[in-house]
Amino acid sequence: MKTFSVTFLPEEKSVEIAPGKTIMEAATAAAVPINSICGGDGVCGKCRVIVRSGKVTAEPNEFLTRREIQRGFALACQTYPDSDVVIEVPLESRVGAIPRLAAEDAARFAPVSQWVGDGAPYAYEPLSRKDYLLLPPPTLNDSVSDQERIYRELRRHRDIPIMQTGLSILRQMPTLLRASNWRVTVTVGQRGGTVEVLQIEPGDTSLRNYGVAVDVGTTTVDAHLVDLATSETVGAQAKYNSQISYGEDIISRIMYANTDEKLQTLRQCVVNDINDLIAALTVETKTRLHDIIYVMCAGNTTMTHLLLGLEVANIRREPYVPSTSFAPVIRAAEVGIKVNARGLLGVIPSIASYVGGDLVADVLVSGMNDSDEVSMLVDMGTNGEIVMGNRDWLACCSASAGPAFEGGGITSGMRATHGAIEHVAFGEGCQVTECGVIGGGKPLGLCGSGLIDLVAELLRVGCIDRTGRFVPEVCGTRLSRDGGQAEFAVLPGSATALGRDIIITEADIGSFIRAKGAIYTAAEALLRHTGLDFSDVRRVYVAGGFGSYLDVRKAIRIGLLPDLPIERFQFIGNGSLQGAKMALLSRQAFDVMEKRIAPNMTHFELSTDPEFMNEFTGSLFLPHTNIEKFPSVEREQRPRVAVR
Amino acid sequence: MKTFSVTFLPEEKSVEIAPGKTIMEAATAAAVPINSICGGDGVCGKCRVIVRSGKVTAEPNEFLTRREIQRGFALACQTYPDSDVVIEVPLESRVGAIPRLAAEDAARFAPVSQWVGDGAPYAYEPLSRKDYLLLPPPTLNDSVSDQERIYRELRRHRDIPIMQTGLSILRQMPTLLRASNWRVTVTVGQRGGTVEVLQIEPGDTSLRNYGVAVDVGTTTVDAHLVDLATSETVGAQAKYNSQISYGEDIISRIMYANTDEKLQTLRQCVVNDINDLIAALTVETKTRLHDIIYVMCAGNTTMTHLLLGLEVANIRREPYVPSTSFAPVIRAAEVGIKVNARGLLGVIPSIASYVGGDLVADVLVSGMNDSDEVSMLVDMGTNGEIVMGNRDWLACCSASAGPAFEGGGITSGMRATHGAIEHVAFGEGCQVTECGVIGGGKPLGLCGSGLIDLVAELLRVGCIDRTGRFVPEVCGTRLSRDGGQAEFAVLPGSATALGRDIIITEADIGSFIRAKGAIYTAAEALLRHTGLDFSDVRRVYVAGGFGSYLDVRKAIRIGLLPDLPIERFQFIGNGSLQGAKMALLSRQAFDVMEKRIAPNMTHFELSTDPEFMNEFTGSLFLPHTNIEKFPSVEREQRPRVAVR
Repeated sequence: MKTFSVTFLPEEKSVEIAPGKTIMEAATAAAVPINSICGGDGVCGKCRVIVRSGKVTAEPNEFLTRREIQRGFALACQTYPDSDVVIEVPLESRVGAIPRLAAEDAARFAPVSQWVGDGAPYAYEPLSRKDYLLLPPPTLNDSVSDQERIYRELRRHRDIPIMQTGLSILRQMPTLLRASNWRVTVTVGQRGGTVEVLQIEPGDTSLRNYGVAVDVGTTTVDAHLVDLATSETVGAQAKYNSQISYGEDIISRIMYANTDEKLQTLRQCVVNDINDLIAALTVETKTRLHDIIYVMCAGNTTMTHLLLGLEVANIRREPYVPSTSFAPVIRAAEVGIKVNARGLLGVIPSIASYVGGDLVADVLVSGMNDSDEVSMLVDMGTNGEIVMGNRDWLACCSASAGPAFEGGGITSGMRATHGAIEHVAFGEGCQVTECGVIGGGKPLGLCGSGLIDLVAELLRVGCIDRTGRFVPEVCGTRLSRDGGQAEFAVLPGSATALGRDIIITEADIGSFIRAKGAIYTAAEALLRHTGLDFSDVRRVYVAGGFGSYLDVRKAIRIGLLPDLPIERFQFIGNGSLQGAKMALLSRQAFDVMEKRIAPNMTHFELSTDPEFMNEFTGSLFLPHTNIEKFPSVEREQRPRVAVR
Repeated sequence: MKTFSVTFLPEEKSVEIAPGKTIMEAATAAAVPINSICGGDGVCGKCRVIVRSGKVTAEPNEFLTRREIQRGFALACQTYPDSDVVIEVPLESRVGAIPRLAAEDAARFAPVSQWVGDGAPYAYEPLSRKDYLLLPPPTLNDSVSDQERIYRELRRHRDIPIMQTGLSILRQMPTLLRASNWRVTVTVGQRGGTVEVLQIEPGDTSLRNYGVAVDVGTTTVDAHLVDLATSETVGAQAKYNSQISYGEDIISRIMYANTDEKLQTLRQCVVNDINDLIAALTVETKTRLHDIIYVMCAGNTTMTHLLLGLEVANIRREPYVPSTSFAPVIRAAEVGIKVNARGLLGVIPSIASYVGGDLVADVLVSGMNDSDEVSMLVDMGTNGEIVMGNRDWLACCSASAGPAFEGGGITSGMRATHGAIEHVAFGEGCQVTECGVIGGGKPLGLCGSGLIDLVAELLRVGCIDRTGRFVPEVCGTRLSRDGGQAEFAVLPGSATALGRDIIITEADIGSFIRAKGAIYTAAEALLRHTGLDFSDVRRVYVAGGFGSYLDVRKAIRIGLLPDLPIERFQFIGNGSLQGAKMALLSRQAFDVMEKRIAPNMTHFELSTDPEFMNEFTGSLFLPHTNIEKFPSVEREQRPRVAVR
């Protein structure tokens, strides 16, 4: 049978394939890792490759522009060689390049010692604990049962009112105790209000005690490996949530999961993602899966329901009722997560169908629940969530912002990871004079904070007007059209790691304006419901996965954040992940989320709030239809507006 | 091929079998139920049949006397037809006749209202509870999660600090709540210190809530079905513990269970017994297995370890350490017990390797733990156990008594069930003038209390001397010899349901004397260890499965019970079963056993007590070597002793 040779660059790996096979199938055969979120359906657009030589037939798709196709770009899963071909797999399409936080990225997160441990607000008491016990061997005068001997020793150090041990542990216990000469390490895990003896190991293994904190996002899944014995974060990994192939946003995934089988398919997707991340963490840090005892997940309500395989249909139907807001701690294996066979899985409690555990974690990290002053917290995930309150009360709401802040749905958008532009400034005219790239080097794309900067700068220099449309006379040659779509070249191909321009289109700016409008309007609505004004807000905490950098002044200039004095703002980063980590390390922190923050937060449902839609429409300007809401911006912009 | 016809009487069922098959195999083929505890190994002697016609070949065995063989008796499993035969299956050998308490026997147990409920010491709060909830459907103003809606309603009626729900229940919950129009019955079970939502059923099923109390004895397993909604005992079943085929007593079973496989074989034996009893209870009462939510077992430490499949080897080795004394509540299915799939299994906590949950239950039933006065409690199981104490302190010990009080190892012995002589008195000479048979009718054998009466009467009339040997000149023609063994005909075959004499041999009397001596000596040793005297004991509680009747005066006369005023004694029957039932119906009662009785009882180990063996030897007389210990008996016996 005739075959074609497919050679992949830069590896120069070659493989022979039969006609009718795709480049993706050839890549799989050659063990060249190419991104494939949708599994080859041509719907995610993540498997871009460049055909360097040879002939191919490609299915039409919406991800490549005419110009890109002319330049040899193709989707690997939709392209069939018609001759021997040479294929380049660009960095952006490599599995390794997909949101994978390098180990050093863990250091970018604030150390947990600020929150947990001596002198910090929460006591160090990890949810899984290993105690090395030197048990006194039994005698005729001390012949209590093996189980009691262990309980007695554990209770010598700590007050544990309710303790449980499973039958399998009890069955091994007698032989194990005697074989190890009464020197064993007992792992206990907090499970609901009780403490479970999870395993008994011979000898001293007390330093091998790990937990994994996971931020289960709609778009990405982030996992940190935490050494529970030292409180240190020892590894970090992230990847896209593979549920994306079943829908970009929450609603489309809920609609997909209309049978139990499909629901469990989505569960399996995210469980596989978490297992992949955990496997990568163990490789990265040379840790054994067996030593990972606890997994703590934070995420929006739909994500945590899907993780547990719980019914999500009612989340979408009025009156928007989740199956659970306080999911029980279960064995991780019950949903398919592969750690220690008896390891536990906890989920940060949530508030309502569209206000999840991610926000509860944010609140914990901000500390606003312990302050006398009224604070506001804004989480800019795919689902935007806002909290307001202080130590006496908390109120919240949510609004769908779309994935723009995470780089989703934006032509050159990407997550806040290596290669992402997180900061950009224009000089005179519309030239980029400052460009901060995460990890340094040439950029691959724009993350959320880079996008905020970019839109603010485009507005400042007049490249776009207050509606977000390009002003051709200001943009000059940087502006071009590909089909009907106007696009602005932010950086030329020569300055990027892609070999092609990093651009922003008018549609990108439109998505971004809707996202920032949703966030701002939700904040306003929450003020209205609580009878307050922005001037009552003493602190504003900003959470989200858009990078470690946020230029607040620019975020105000485009109307994303309220026009308050700069010193009132504080960026807390990925509070979801940080809160999950705090829970792993401090039972007290978990208790505060479960018993104080989550149950006491008042939730306002904006989807049925008639004023919300009007206010939202008003926010689809830069910064806002009523510029009086942004006096500092008004002062700054007035001369330039006069120029137009 | 040549076959033989085997006809069974009284059914007149016939079956053809090949040569080389046993009568037992023929009976199985004919569906004639014959007892077979040992499974056909010829070691239990329970499958006696009578060969009415035809020729047979029989293996030698130790269960039949020469005279019995001459009269046609044979063991069905050791006998091979050599021609067509007619076989009679006597009542005693029928499966139906084996310790099976008829339904009316349940009534012989004291109603639990004496202990649990209004005006009783323990509050009614069953360990599994069904609440019919009329939930308010969710609205936009009340959109808490489905799980919280249920918890909130449950907590409206009762204080439940910690509640848990398994993933499988959570997964079904949303659909079930909506399909049942928010009217559901929630079953919650107490599990350690937490309460678990065990199931949710549509509509009102709150009256279908059952528990099974099980006394897991070394010799017999007794089960009562309890309606947890009404506190009523609705059914009773019992059978021999099939572990008997692996050893009559605890020690031989522990020795057998020297590999995990054999340990699990023993677990399976008793689990099968419990399943058989539960199946019979459901048939008897037309109850569904699904509606049995909780199984509570009491038994000695070895029996409960074997039930849970826990290592027993260390129970037998000095310093006699059990795996657990406070076994966790587990799902019944984890050990193979077939009730509701999520039903729970609890075990009454124990004290030490040879002082089990049966004794803890006895103490609860006696109420001695709540009294100011010092009481003594004597449990006459295969393993005799003694407790002494009051509300401030409790001390206990154990001594191996053998199965005599349960009818085991006694030629005409049987359990305290239909057909058992529970009371017997002699008139002038040595004629039986009073004979109380459980359930009425002609007797099948002697239960424990009947045996006590019989030995006491034989002693009183002078048929035996104080060493337990027959006095031929008093016994007269009632005494005969079968081989070397002297036997006394208590009742002639014409007066029994067996068609043969009910007898007692000198060996039987010897076994009995050792049993009563072990009990008495253990009680004396416990007094010695606690620095007390029998005169300090204000009440004596007697527990055991030897019948509902106990003639205390006769028990004193033979030296089983101490010589105290009659009014100080109280018979509490099967405290093990009764205590398990109280636990099912009252969480408070279970808590008292777990938190007050079991952990606070001091245990004295007699097997390493050098004085115990000396004292035991002195007790192998009727009533005792030192008759001064029994002044009332001394006064009574003096003239008769003079006659000898």
